[in-house]
Amino acid sequence: MNAGAGHFITFEGGEGAGKTTQIAKLAEVLEQRGRDVVRTREPGGSPAAEEIRGLLLHHETSWEPLSEALLHYAARCEHLRETIRPALARGAWVLCDRFSDSTLAYQGYALGLNRDAIETLERLVVAGTGPDLTIILDVSPNVGMARLGKRGGDKDRYERMDSDFHVRLRDGFLQIARESPARCVVVDAERDPEAVHKDVLTAVRDKLRTFPG
Amino acid sequence: MNAGAGHFITFEGGEGAGKTTQIAKLAEVLEQRGRDVVRTREPGGSPAAEEIRGLLLHHETSWEPLSEALLHYAARCEHLRETIRPALARGAWVLCDRFSDSTLAYQGYALGLNRDAIETLERLVVAGTGPDLTIILDVSPNVGMARLGKRGGDKDRYERMDSDFHVRLRDGFLQIARESPARCVVVDAERDPEAVHKDVLTAVRDKLRTFPG
Repeated sequence: MNAGAGHFITFEGGEGAGKTTQIAKLAEVLEQRGRDVVRTREPGGSPAAEEIRGLLLHHETSWEPLSEALLHYAARCEHLRETIRPALARGAWVLCDRFSDSTLAYQGYALGLNRDAIETLERLVVAGTGPDLTIILDVSPNVGMARLGKRGGDKDRYERMDSDFHVRLRDGFLQIARESPARCVVVDAERDPEAVHKDVLTAVRDKLRTFPG
Repeated sequence: MNAGAGHFITFEGGEGAGKTTQIAKLAEVLEQRGRDVVRTREPGGSPAAEEIRGLLLHHETSWEPLSEALLHYAARCEHLRETIRPALARGAWVLCDRFSDSTLAYQGYALGLNRDAIETLERLVVAGTGPDLTIILDVSPNVGMARLGKRGGDKDRYERMDSDFHVRLRDGFLQIARESPARCVVVDAERDPEAVHKDVLTAVRDKLRTFPG
């Protein structure tokens, strides 16, 4: 539970899971009901953090997983300070595309960084401002990669990883959900976006018990 | 004591202390005696770490001290992996302009980040590869800033800080020396470069007991 008066919802999942679409749909419902909504993303989400995003996603050499985790948490520290904490303090709904679970899934489960290191950074940086609800959009790596292929454009460093990487990543997210059932809801995201959206709304109502309308 | 076969010497001190000059003089002596010398610096010292240096020194907005420490340790992680550990493993003398003591002095003593956070990052990233010897070049802030003024060129973010900042910084380095007397030697760096160099050579002989010639 975050320390502010607002609601903090994170969307997690592998590449091509549909996070952007689902965040847009939820934001639309909340805004129609007059709620103050902040849509944001990681890595990035604030001016300083977006500069670190550039290093992480488009850097040509591959970072050591520990350096990568340190960079993600540096960006998260600025994102919390500049964007998330002020929004929660004024009572907004913060909808965030990726957060700490992505560091644990990518650098931890998929790239092999030991969990203690990530948990140490989590305590240092996030402390009491974790999400109230995390929606894990689950798709098989094949479906996710096929969607990415259709999307076109240049692929970032993670999108170019091999299929074993994407299998470990998905398993990581599912493991995180099993370990934090009070916070996480896994939604089958291979279905059409409207069906997924209905499940997202149900999860928000069930978990937060303050959903308007 | 570092885990490699080489020698790891760091040079620390505030702005205008003369670190670059003293590293060049010590390197010359060692190279004349046929030693393998690696001169490096922080933040930076490897291709990936130099990219982070750019963010740290030339970023216009001011980072939160914790984000700054995380960025320094991300750069340090790459610097250790790409430059320092391989050099020590092959038996080289590594002469490094700034290392972890600068994070403690700048982000800790001068900018107020709590020490526990820095020590946590130190354990996570540096582990067994700390310096064998640290030379702290001590100058009063007035002398240091006057030297910087003569040097000309654009000032980086730390060089532009106010004089209270530079007083806290100097006190921080002196406190670090008091706490680690087996590793640190404070050298009065307000004197001419040759006199300072003699004291550096004495420190290397006394502390490492393997100095050539």
